[in-house]
Amino acid sequence: MTIRRRLYLTLEPTEKGGVLERIFEFFLISIIILNIFAVILDSVAELRSKHDALFVKFEFFTIIFFTLEYIARIYSIVENPEYSEPVKGRLKYMRQPMAIIDLLAFLPFYFVFIDLRFLRIFRLMSLFRLFKIARYLHALKIFKRVLTDRKEQLVLSFLFILFVLTIISFIMFYAEHDAQPDKFSSIPATMWWGIATITTVGYGDMVPITALGKFLGGLFAIAGVGLLALPAGILSSGFFELLHVDKSKEVKKCPHCGKEIHE
Amino acid sequence: MTIRRRLYLTLEPTEKGGVLERIFEFFLISIIILNIFAVILDSVAELRSKHDALFVKFEFFTIIFFTLEYIARIYSIVENPEYSEPVKGRLKYMRQPMAIIDLLAFLPFYFVFIDLRFLRIFRLMSLFRLFKIARYLHALKIFKRVLTDRKEQLVLSFLFILFVLTIISFIMFYAEHDAQPDKFSSIPATMWWGIATITTVGYGDMVPITALGKFLGGLFAIAGVGLLALPAGILSSGFFELLHVDKSKEVKKCPHCGKEIHE
Amino acid sequence: MTIRRRLYLTLEPTEKGGVLERIFEFFLISIIILNIFAVILDSVAELRSKHDALFVKFEFFTIIFFTLEYIARIYSIVENPEYSEPVKGRLKYMRQPMAIIDLLAFLPFYFVFIDLRFLRIFRLMSLFRLFKIARYLHALKIFKRVLTDRKEQLVLSFLFILFVLTIISFIMFYAEHDAQPDKFSSIPATMWWGIATITTVGYGDMVPITALGKFLGGLFAIAGVGLLALPAGILSSGFFELLHVDKSKEVKKCPHCGKEIHE
Amino acid sequence: MTIRRRLYLTLEPTEKGGVLERIFEFFLISIIILNIFAVILDSVAELRSKHDALFVKFEFFTIIFFTLEYIARIYSIVENPEYSEPVKGRLKYMRQPMAIIDLLAFLPFYFVFIDLRFLRIFRLMSLFRLFKIARYLHALKIFKRVLTDRKEQLVLSFLFILFVLTIISFIMFYAEHDAQPDKFSSIPATMWWGIATITTVGYGDMVPITALGKFLGGLFAIAGVGLLALPAGILSSGFFELLHVDKSKEVKKCPHCGKEIHE
Repeated sequence: MTIRRRLYLTLEPTEKGGVLERIFEFFLISIIILNIFAVILDSVAELRSKHDALFVKFEFFTIIFFTLEYIARIYSIVENPEYSEPVKGRLKYMRQPMAIIDLLAFLPFYFVFIDLRFLRIFRLMSLFRLFKIARYLHALKIFKRVLTDRKEQLVLSFLFILFVLTIISFIMFYAEHDAQPDKFSSIPATMWWGIATITTVGYGDMVPITALGKFLGGLFAIAGVGLLALPAGILSSGFFELLHVDKSKEVKKCPHCGKEIHE
Repeated sequence: MTIRRRLYLTLEPTEKGGVLERIFEFFLISIIILNIFAVILDSVAELRSKHDALFVKFEFFTIIFFTLEYIARIYSIVENPEYSEPVKGRLKYMRQPMAIIDLLAFLPFYFVFIDLRFLRIFRLMSLFRLFKIARYLHALKIFKRVLTDRKEQLVLSFLFILFVLTIISFIMFYAEHDAQPDKFSSIPATMWWGIATITTVGYGDMVPITALGKFLGGLFAIAGVGLLALPAGILSSGFFELLHVDKSKEVKKCPHCGKEIHE
Repeated sequence: MTIRRRLYLTLEPTEKGGVLERIFEFFLISIIILNIFAVILDSVAELRSKHDALFVKFEFFTIIFFTLEYIARIYSIVENPEYSEPVKGRLKYMRQPMAIIDLLAFLPFYFVFIDLRFLRIFRLMSLFRLFKIARYLHALKIFKRVLTDRKEQLVLSFLFILFVLTIISFIMFYAEHDAQPDKFSSIPATMWWGIATITTVGYGDMVPITALGKFLGGLFAIAGVGLLALPAGILSSGFFELLHVDKSKEVKKCPHCGKEIHE
Repeated sequence: MTIRRRLYLTLEPTEKGGVLERIFEFFLISIIILNIFAVILDSVAELRSKHDALFVKFEFFTIIFFTLEYIARIYSIVENPEYSEPVKGRLKYMRQPMAIIDLLAFLPFYFVFIDLRFLRIFRLMSLFRLFKIARYLHALKIFKRVLTDRKEQLVLSFLFILFVLTIISFIMFYAEHDAQPDKFSSIPATMWWGIATITTVGYGDMVPITALGKFLGGLFAIAGVGLLALPAGILSSGFFELLHVDKSKEVKKCPHCGKEIHE
C-alpha cells in the first residue's frame, strides 16, 4: 500500500477502521474537543488573562496541526474514486462544506500574528473549529436527513409561522403601543414578544398590561401551541420513520402466491 | 382566447401556469411582500419620519395596483364556471372571504387622502394587505383543512380548557388575592396567570407568593401539560393523517400474481 | 305520559331530545353560563360595587331556580331504572357526584341571607356552580375516560415526577441556599423552582445564580423535557386510541376461512 | 422453613407476597416516606429549630432501623440462587447499586454523633434515603428500561443538543456581549440563556436587548422546538412501544378455524 493510500484510509472515518485509523480519529477528535473547550474558556475574561500564554501556545499548536491535517486530506483525497482526478478532483473536494470548514478553521488565524487589530474577527472565525466536530456527530446526520426529507413541509410551516407571527405582532402592536410605547415600540419589536409567546419561552421582558392586550395575548398563547404542533409533528414523524425504517424493511410476502414482495 | 379569458387565467393561480401567469404571480406576490414590509417598517417611528415621502409614494402605487387587480378579478371571474352569471356570479364572488380581503386592502385607503383624522384606523386596515398573501400560502390550506376536519373535537377541547382555566383561576384568586391584591385583583386578572401557566409560557409578571398558592399553582402547572396534550394530540394526529393519507390510500398489488393486497 | 316521566325526560340530557328537552337544556345551560359570568365578574371590585343590586337579584333568582331544578331531579329520577326505588333509589342518586354538586350550588347560599359574616365561604361555594356545566361538557367525558383508562400509569408517572422533583429540589437547595438564602430558603421552597423548570413554565422569580446551580439547573431543565414526555405520551396515546376507536372497530375477516373476527 | 429463608422472603418484594411480607413492606415504605418528609422538612429553618428534639429522635430510630434492615438483607441474601455463596455471593450483592444506597443511607450517620463539624455533608448524604424508595417505584423501572433501550440514540441526541447549544451560545455571546457585558459575560454564561431558550423554560433573567441578538435569539427559540423534538420523540416512541408491547405480542387466532393470523 502506498503512503498516500494509507494516509487516506487513516483520515477518512469508515465503519470498520484499522488500529491506526482509530488512534488518529481519537487524537483528532481530542484536539477538536480541546479546541472547543479553548474557544469556550477563552471567552471567560478571568481565565484568558490568567492563562494567556497557555492559550497562545495551544493556538499555535492547533494552527500547525489543522494545516497539516488539511494538506494531508487534499493530498490523499485522490484515493477516493469520487475525487480521483489530481487537479479537478482536489478542487471539487475543496468546495465541499466540510473541506471549507477545515480550511477556515486554520487559514485566517495565520493573520492573527501579523495584525492583532482584527482579533475580534479571528474569535468569530473559531466557530469553524466547533463545526469540525460535525464530521463525527452521527445525530447531525439523522437531523440533516429528516430536514432534507421534510424540507418542503418545514419551509411551508416556517413561512406559515412567520405569517401568523406577523399578524399577531401587528394586532398586539396596536393593542399595547399606547400603554407601553417604550416596550411595544414597533411591529418588529412586538415580534420578539410574539416569538417568546408562541414558542412558550415567555421571558417576561415584554408583557401586555392592557385588558385587550392580555385577552388577545392569551388567545395567541393558546393558539401558539397549535401552531408549533405543525413543525413539531412534521419533525417527530420524520424521526419516527427514520428510526423505525429498519423494522419496516422486513420482507413481506404475498398472501395469495407466497412470493416475497419488495416495495 | 378572449382578453377576459386570458386575464382570468393570469390572475387565478393554477398548478401548471403559463409564463404570463407566473410573471404576474411573481409580481403580485412581490407587491404584497413589499407591502407587508412597508406595514411593518412603517410602525418603526425613526423609519417613518425619515422615509415619509417614500412610504406615501409606495402607498399611492399600492392603492392603484390593488384597485386595478380587484377590478380585473371581478371582470374576469365569470370565466370560472362557478361564477359564470354576469351579475349574480360576480356578486357571489365578491362575498368570498378572499375577495372581501382584496377589497378592504385598498378601498378604505382612498379616504386617507380626504380625511387624515382617521389615520389610525387606516393603519389597522392594512392588516388586510397582510392577509392577501394567504392566497399563496399552501401551509395555510393544510392548517385550515386540519382545523375543519377536527373542528368539533377542537371546539370541545377549547371549551374544556376554558372550563379548567376558569376553575383554576377561581381557586388561585381566592388563594392569592389577600397576599397580592394588586396582581391577583380579580378572576379575569388571574386568568392571565392561568393561561401563562397552562401553556407553560410563564412570563413571570404574576407569580403566587403564598405557600398555598405555590402548592396549587404547582399542581395546576403539572396538570396543564396534560390539559394541552388534548388539543396538541388532536392537531398532531390531524397533520399526521393529512401528510400520510396519500401513501396509505394507494392500493398495493402483488408484483408476482397481480392481485390486490388489502392489509 | 305522566308529568313525572315528562319531567324526567326533560331534565335528563339524551342523544335525540324532544323540543321541550332542548328548550329546557338551552335555558339551564344559559343560567349556568350566566352564573359563571356572575362569579367571574363579581370578583372584579369595580363591577361588584357598581352593579351590586343586579348581582343580588340574579343571586336570588339563581338560588330559587337551582333549588327547583334539584327538587325536580330528585322527584323524577325514579323514572330511571337505575334509581327506581322511591327512597333507596333517590338516596343513591343524591350520593352521585353531579347531584352533590347540584345541591351545593344552592343550599349553602340560603344562609347568606341569614349571616353575612361567612360571605367569603359562600363565594368559594360558587365553585360548585361552575362545576354544574360539567354535565354538558363532552370533552370532560373524553378526558375522564382517558384518565380512568390510564389511571395506574398516570399515578405511577406522577409519583415518579414527585420523586425526581424531590431529588432535584434536594440537590438545588444545597447548591443555591448559601448564595440565595431568601429565595432557595428550604427544599419545599426549591420545589417551586423545580416545578417551574421541569414543566418549562419558568416564571423567573427563582433562578440559580451560582455556577454549580446553573450547571445542575441546566441539566435538570433538559431532563425535565424527557420526564414530562412520560405522562404527555401516556395521555396522547390515550386520546389517540379513544379518537380512533371507531375506525379500528371495523370488522376484520380471517384470511384463511373468510369469516368475520370480532376481537 | 428456616428463619433465614423467612427473612429473605419478607425482605424481597415479590408479585404475590404473604401477609408478613406485605406488613413489612408497608412498614419499610412508611419509614422511608417519613424519612423523605424529615429530610424535606428539616430544610425549613423554622421547623428545624422548633422540633429539633423530634428530628434527633427520629434520626436515631432511622439509623438503627436501616442498620438492622441492611444486616438482615446481607444475612438472608444467600437464599437467592444468584447470591448463594456465603462470602462471594454476599460481597457481590453488596456491590449492587441498591445495596450501596442502603448502606450509605445509615453508615455515614454514625459519625454525626462523633463529629458535628461535618453536619453539612451528613445532610447531603440523606439523599441516599430518598433513593431507598426507588426499590418500590415501578415507573422508575419503565423509565430505566426506555433509557436502556434507547441509550445510544439518547446519547447521540444529547451530544447533538450540546453541540447546537455551544454554537448558539458562541454566536449569542458575540451578538450580546458588548451590550450586556455583565449578563452575557462569557460563552458558558451564555449557555444558561441557551438552555433556558431551547427548553422553552425562559426564566427571563438573561434576555438579548440588541436588534441582532433578538433576531438570532428568536430564530434559535423556534429552532429549539425542533431540536428538543428529537429526544422527546425518541422517549415518546420508547414509552409507546413499551406500553403497547404486551398487546401487540399476543398471537391472534381465528375463532372459526383456529389458525394463527399473522398480520
